[in-house]
Amino acid sequence: MSRRKQLIVQKFGGSSVANVDRIKNVAQRVLETKTKTNQLVVVVSALGDTTDELEALALQLSQNPPDREMDMLMSTGEQVSCALLAIAIKELGHDSISFTGGQVGIKTDGLYTKARIHKIDARRIRKALKEGKIVIVAGYQGIAENHDITTLGRGGSDLTAVALAKTLHADVCEIFTDVPGIYTTDPRVVKEAQKLKQITFEEMLEMASLGAQVMQARSIEVAKRFNIPIHVRSSFVKEEGTMILKRDEKLEEVSVRGITCDKSEAKITICAVPDKPGVAAYIFNEISKVGISVDTIVQNVSHTRLTDISFTVAKTDLDKAIKATEKISKKIGAGEVQHDKNVARVSIVGSGMRSHHGIAAKMFQTLAKRKINIEMITTSEISISCIIHSGNADKAAKSLHAAFELEKINQM
Amino acid sequence: MSRRKQLIVQKFGGSSVANVDRIKNVAQRVLETKTKTNQLVVVVSALGDTTDELEALALQLSQNPPDREMDMLMSTGEQVSCALLAIAIKELGHDSISFTGGQVGIKTDGLYTKARIHKIDARRIRKALKEGKIVIVAGYQGIAENHDITTLGRGGSDLTAVALAKTLHADVCEIFTDVPGIYTTDPRVVKEAQKLKQITFEEMLEMASLGAQVMQARSIEVAKRFNIPIHVRSSFVKEEGTMILKRDEKLEEVSVRGITCDKSEAKITICAVPDKPGVAAYIFNEISKVGISVDTIVQNVSHTRLTDISFTVAKTDLDKAIKATEKISKKIGAGEVQHDKNVARVSIVGSGMRSHHGIAAKMFQTLAKRKINIEMITTSEISISCIIHSGNADKAAKSLHAAFELEKINQM
Repeated sequence: MSRRKQLIVQKFGGSSVANVDRIKNVAQRVLETKTKTNQLVVVVSALGDTTDELEALALQLSQNPPDREMDMLMSTGEQVSCALLAIAIKELGHDSISFTGGQVGIKTDGLYTKARIHKIDARRIRKALKEGKIVIVAGYQGIAENHDITTLGRGGSDLTAVALAKTLHADVCEIFTDVPGIYTTDPRVVKEAQKLKQITFEEMLEMASLGAQVMQARSIEVAKRFNIPIHVRSSFVKEEGTMILKRDEKLEEVSVRGITCDKSEAKITICAVPDKPGVAAYIFNEISKVGISVDTIVQNVSHTRLTDISFTVAKTDLDKAIKATEKISKKIGAGEVQHDKNVARVSIVGSGMRSHHGIAAKMFQTLAKRKINIEMITTSEISISCIIHSGNADKAAKSLHAAFELEKINQM
Repeated sequence: MSRRKQLIVQKFGGSSVANVDRIKNVAQRVLETKTKTNQLVVVVSALGDTTDELEALALQLSQNPPDREMDMLMSTGEQVSCALLAIAIKELGHDSISFTGGQVGIKTDGLYTKARIHKIDARRIRKALKEGKIVIVAGYQGIAENHDITTLGRGGSDLTAVALAKTLHADVCEIFTDVPGIYTTDPRVVKEAQKLKQITFEEMLEMASLGAQVMQARSIEVAKRFNIPIHVRSSFVKEEGTMILKRDEKLEEVSVRGITCDKSEAKITICAVPDKPGVAAYIFNEISKVGISVDTIVQNVSHTRLTDISFTVAKTDLDKAIKATEKISKKIGAGEVQHDKNVARVSIVGSGMRSHHGIAAKMFQTLAKRKINIEMITTSEISISCIIHSGNADKAAKSLHAAFELEKINQM
């Protein structure tokens, strides 16, 4: 009886290949997988801090280096690590071959530094796999129609792995990182935090966009769209990590799967904004024009002709945002512009929220009981976020983790 | 009246782009040339010691890394420097674009680590030049038919520059290095050494193969074959360097143009070798089988049935060579194998030697007058080399420099 050949795509992040010993460790690990599976494609990121070091070099030459040249420069990091890993694997006695994104047919558009993959012509990979080779692919990069090298944005190696898994119809895409998996919340903050056995794509996307930085959000979207199972696990220990899967009968639906806490934002409030149609549109259009992304926006119903509008921006954009907002405020005849750096976004995430009632109420009550004031609230289909004082963030995470009994999540 | 557009190819070596300040200096220099010429292609080597550092990384993973993966790895060094130079030039306000060897159509055979250029499809360069851009090309690399990255051997950036100069019908190929030009002999040894204004390709080839390490020999051969004028000059000073040209009426023929001194070899002698046909062939065939290159070979006419055979090998190969030679000696019934590390090869080079008599005699007399014993002699059409005790090398170079009046060479 002939069994279908299993194909696995593995991705190792920069910390997993930070030095010669770690590269040797990855080679060993790759070989162990190869003895258990038939075909293996390995995607690697640049060694440790290489990407940052290359960027620093460029910035010493120009404060505004051209994107095309940055891609030419930055893509070398992954080329180095894939060649080194291929060398390490061959040294252990197994045939392997490394490829750049271009060689492996990862065709992208011409949007340097944030290119999108158009298609993958995987003939060369398939041929190498048929020859029994372990295929090593430089992550994070592709090739534009004019043969220029492009990169897929920070964290783009995840996208390379997921896109290859899709093209090759891989059975699973394993993302090796420096943590053992996805946790109910940050284990450094809440000691009861549990490693999740499973999580849905939707939940993982919410977690990622709300501050959990294990995987690049875009690559999770692609995995979701094509239903590619992702296994997030540690490259330093053998134990299984977290499976990211489609929501279906096999995956128990829970109301809350995780709690995230994001301290990277700051809050801006424009006071006494004239409450008339088109004002909000004008404000946020002007802000986007200066290149600032706005996250949460809250505008309350007003009982007068004036209202307050609050929104959050990345802390790194705050100064620029304040300046722009003050200009706008003057223009529309609004009042004072206030800001607050000491805010945190605490969120609960769970696809079961859709069908469970009272989750929001329980969240607000839990925070109230701990005397944590809620400054802003936003919700998505499977998450609820509260902007609170950043000094209360850890306390909030702990109490919410307990209230939703997440320490028992693996027993459910 | 329309004048033909001038096209220059410049090559900057690793020491010229060793750090951010030097890259800025090169960018400035390139721009100065651009204002004087119409079209400019710049070839760069890897930053400073990058190539050595990458090689060291690979050797930590494997004592015998596969050549294909080494090319994948090593080629990144030049990719980094060409991107950085393009960034630096753009920062100075001039449009520029960087290319890898593959992007620029440098097609090679599949001999990894020492590939040969088959052809150059320069359409992309020509297009960029037409658009007024300064074109920056990663040296030392090409692309094989299967799209693998190949490298052209150490010093291969010189070859990239010369090959591009040929393809683009460049008016001159400028090789920028860390010395001001080609000298009559090593100025660190002979203080009277003169920078040559001109030298022929043949003389430069002899100088290179006899130990003068300013340019890769293969690239000089190509320049000679296609008659591409080379200008070797310093990237740190503005003064003109040395032109390497075809031998013709414009280039004054001198009997001796330079003196080289090479201390990198050792001498091996097999004593009492049976003097019969085929013995020498057997010896050097066996030695080449263990991967050792032999340089000078001397076998004297013998008056008995036994003769001595001496030859030189690179000092780094000496131990391996002695072992192999002792085995051979036993096999052919010869006597003792002697060796001597303390030898040096002192050579005089000059294409005028062809038509001038008495040059060899003058060389031997000069050495004899200084009581320097000559152990071996070899000659080529335009050079004479003596193997002497290495302790006498500097003295020999000085006395020969004086005897042939090389301090006056630029007044001839």
